[in-house]
Amino acid sequence: MGFEAGGRLAVVLYDKVAEEMDVRPLDRVTVKYNNRKVVAIVITTKMLPEKIVGVYDEVARALGVREGDELEISPAKTPESIFYIRKKLARGKLSEEEIRAIISDVVDGYLSDVELTALVTAVHFQGLSIEETLSFTKAMVDTGEKLDLKSYVKGPVLDKHSMGGVPGDKTSLILVPIIASLGYYIPKTSSRAITSAAGTADRMEALAPVTLGIEEMRKIVLREKGCIVWGGTLGLAPADDIIIRVEYPLGIDPFFIPSILAKKLAVGSTHVVLDVPVGRGAKVGTIGEARNIAREFVELSRRLSLRLEAAITYGEEPIGYTIGPALEAREALRTLMGKGPKDLIDKALSLAEILLSMIGIKNGKELARTALETGKAERKMRSIIEAQGGDPDVKPEDIPLGDKTLTLYAENEGVVVWINNSAMSLIGKTAGAPRDKSAGVELYVKRGDKIKKGQPILTVYSESSVKLQAVERLVRELNPIVVGKGYEMQMVLEKVPAYPQEKPIGLER
Amino acid sequence: MGFEAGGRLAVVLYDKVAEEMDVRPLDRVTVKYNNRKVVAIVITTKMLPEKIVGVYDEVARALGVREGDELEISPAKTPESIFYIRKKLARGKLSEEEIRAIISDVVDGYLSDVELTALVTAVHFQGLSIEETLSFTKAMVDTGEKLDLKSYVKGPVLDKHSMGGVPGDKTSLILVPIIASLGYYIPKTSSRAITSAAGTADRMEALAPVTLGIEEMRKIVLREKGCIVWGGTLGLAPADDIIIRVEYPLGIDPFFIPSILAKKLAVGSTHVVLDVPVGRGAKVGTIGEARNIAREFVELSRRLSLRLEAAITYGEEPIGYTIGPALEAREALRTLMGKGPKDLIDKALSLAEILLSMIGIKNGKELARTALETGKAERKMRSIIEAQGGDPDVKPEDIPLGDKTLTLYAENEGVVVWINNSAMSLIGKTAGAPRDKSAGVELYVKRGDKIKKGQPILTVYSESSVKLQAVERLVRELNPIVVGKGYEMQMVLEKVPAYPQEKPIGLER
Repeated sequence: MGFEAGGRLAVVLYDKVAEEMDVRPLDRVTVKYNNRKVVAIVITTKMLPEKIVGVYDEVARALGVREGDELEISPAKTPESIFYIRKKLARGKLSEEEIRAIISDVVDGYLSDVELTALVTAVHFQGLSIEETLSFTKAMVDTGEKLDLKSYVKGPVLDKHSMGGVPGDKTSLILVPIIASLGYYIPKTSSRAITSAAGTADRMEALAPVTLGIEEMRKIVLREKGCIVWGGTLGLAPADDIIIRVEYPLGIDPFFIPSILAKKLAVGSTHVVLDVPVGRGAKVGTIGEARNIAREFVELSRRLSLRLEAAITYGEEPIGYTIGPALEAREALRTLMGKGPKDLIDKALSLAEILLSMIGIKNGKELARTALETGKAERKMRSIIEAQGGDPDVKPEDIPLGDKTLTLYAENEGVVVWINNSAMSLIGKTAGAPRDKSAGVELYVKRGDKIKKGQPILTVYSESSVKLQAVERLVRELNPIVVGKGYEMQMVLEKVPAYPQEKPIGLER
Repeated sequence: MGFEAGGRLAVVLYDKVAEEMDVRPLDRVTVKYNNRKVVAIVITTKMLPEKIVGVYDEVARALGVREGDELEISPAKTPESIFYIRKKLARGKLSEEEIRAIISDVVDGYLSDVELTALVTAVHFQGLSIEETLSFTKAMVDTGEKLDLKSYVKGPVLDKHSMGGVPGDKTSLILVPIIASLGYYIPKTSSRAITSAAGTADRMEALAPVTLGIEEMRKIVLREKGCIVWGGTLGLAPADDIIIRVEYPLGIDPFFIPSILAKKLAVGSTHVVLDVPVGRGAKVGTIGEARNIAREFVELSRRLSLRLEAAITYGEEPIGYTIGPALEAREALRTLMGKGPKDLIDKALSLAEILLSMIGIKNGKELARTALETGKAERKMRSIIEAQGGDPDVKPEDIPLGDKTLTLYAENEGVVVWINNSAMSLIGKTAGAPRDKSAGVELYVKRGDKIKKGQPILTVYSESSVKLQAVERLVRELNPIVVGKGYEMQMVLEKVPAYPQEKPIGLER
């Protein structure tokens, strides 16, 4: 039929036929062709001829079946994992075997949206015990591809993950080439933006292709020690990609710990630094919350024989001066070429120091700084760009920006007391990012900067003047940069409307 | 396209087109045609030509659109009700306006399965406050059809609802003609079996058609005072029918109170008796639990200006001697003809007494008994059967039973110490009920009966010998009727396996 159901297996039956078989919509049937069989979810219609079955592409591929072929269809037993989901709904704890059955059925596409959502919301309300989290992590790893560097090389494999939520955070584009240039493996997979204006994969894609297969990734990592690729096509922990599809419209993310750890284990990382940015508008709002998350990750990693150290980082304003794929790629490249903003450099060097100290290197920050300042990291980045299929000689100004711009000027003199993270993301998205790589926001000021009346404070880039008009309306509404007479002078930063606004959560992993 | 999505509005877009519009699968689009518009959920495909949109039947009907017509499609704003569902996910309380918005979007088909399931599971875990329950009830009533007897007649409108879970409970088929024969209105709507072997609608359907529209129902009630029809085609509180579709596969039922009350309010009932059967295998397992449910119903009804009295009834074994639509219709008819089992007669007369006492009639049980014993109730039932389109002269033996039978005999002499409700339901379903109306179980014994070795204890009827073979296997496994040497002698009735078995819940409303 040419219908894609997001990895789910579905067949369309004439409704009278379904009724005779005693199956209802969303029930399961076993579909047999030659010696192969799959379990598929039923959709009914009044329009198909009685003996005709519509199969979604996923079913056709799994069975190798074509139009006109004859299929055998019979009611299927309910997958056992549904009883384990019901058990979680009944506030029970799940065993490792039960969790393996659930994740296996998730990956095989046997669960309907109703069942998947019940799983996600049950975990949202009931939480996961340490044992359950470990079991979900292991099941997610085992049902996907693995990079398997161990079969090829010895020694540590370093990695980094950020909890996200801070706009403009292009740290990975600095950290990965630094670590790789020092001779250590860092097979970085990253995500595209879901709720933000740019994910690391979107940023890197302004410099080189990021949509690679697992074999290509392995080849690049073995040669360059590092890479920055999109996780979406690698098949690592694919259960996560299916689960995230129902989490996203609900704005909840209860599987974030197993999801993150599974992706790291699937590439064979041995030492990971977890960046937990803290700030209003970031995913984690307070230091206390950050410490709890960090401790949980450290403990769970220990039990998975993974060394993980967390860094709680400043996330009250964007990192560097740019937000949006092209602008951020430009800024990262300039930073590697010796002209970067202080906060971005400090963050990259500090995370490098943590990673290097975890493998016993004492003067890691100095080593990292030297790699950055001597151009060694830049050369490594250009090698990685070339290995991934990009132009190794790319200059920052080669990366195209939207030709429609809107610049905001300070209405008063004063001090920048606050830059609203969520507003910055929303402006970048409204301008067209991340789909429009050339869209984004360039800041001319950061917190604490003194500014004069009439001074430009930011420029928005877009390829669409319609989108820029929407940005203009948004900017008036949001007051994204708060200028006061000094830190003490303006204590109310914003008013919260009677109903809470939707808070974007960091689904990027 | 001829696809029915269970009342949901959906359109199928070529995936590149969806991408250009920046909509993902399950996102919403506004679909305009002439001056009409609807919001529909997006499904993507690679197979449609770029400019072609596939519309589900629900969309075609709502817009009055035909093949070849031109539609205007644009991304839609997220329905606000999704933010209220997220609020419930965030453990918040919902206001009346928020609940009205949710139920309105449920009925209009704007919510995806993911969002519907999130609503159901959030209420499952968080519960509903009294105010939330009242608001859901009112919103469910207001978004559906109403019987509106008030515009035609004066005086009380009586009604009955059972929480269900006891097999063989054909009480409504006795109670309704008794009450109607005494001159009181009782517009009984009922459900088909979802998890059991027969619902009241299935039982009645063995005697007369039950699939009526609201106008037909009104005409019958105005003439006969009573009816027993299926609720599924009346359009009363349709939100419930949509919600139940996601509750069913999950085995949870968190909306049962607003659902039940909304159906009663929608037919304009003023006095309701709520039957809460208590027993192992019934929906409610203990008297304490039954009291809590009863009190909650009484209090909520008071605030909805509905007089509701609850009866906690014996539910430890099937009511009467039969399970399955045809067998139960036969037994109900025989009971109205003066040859009924004691427990069924006592239950019907006692519920009649409660209803009649609520409207100030003191000797209700005697009135009801007289109606039953003089044949007045039987004559009323035959009038109702005729009004609904059945044969008023039907004899019990006219109702066909499955011609394949399996009879079980006592292996030892002793006393019947337990009849397993869940096992009886399962046997009835395995024999083919409720779809096969002629399938079911006839019991020859009840609890406390003394039996001899070799005496028949039950017969299973089915139209399929394959199904009877499955019943035979099941009976060996389940030990549905426990025979002991006396009540004291056998204290262990069954062993519970290490993992809890699925407990069927009474989704029939």
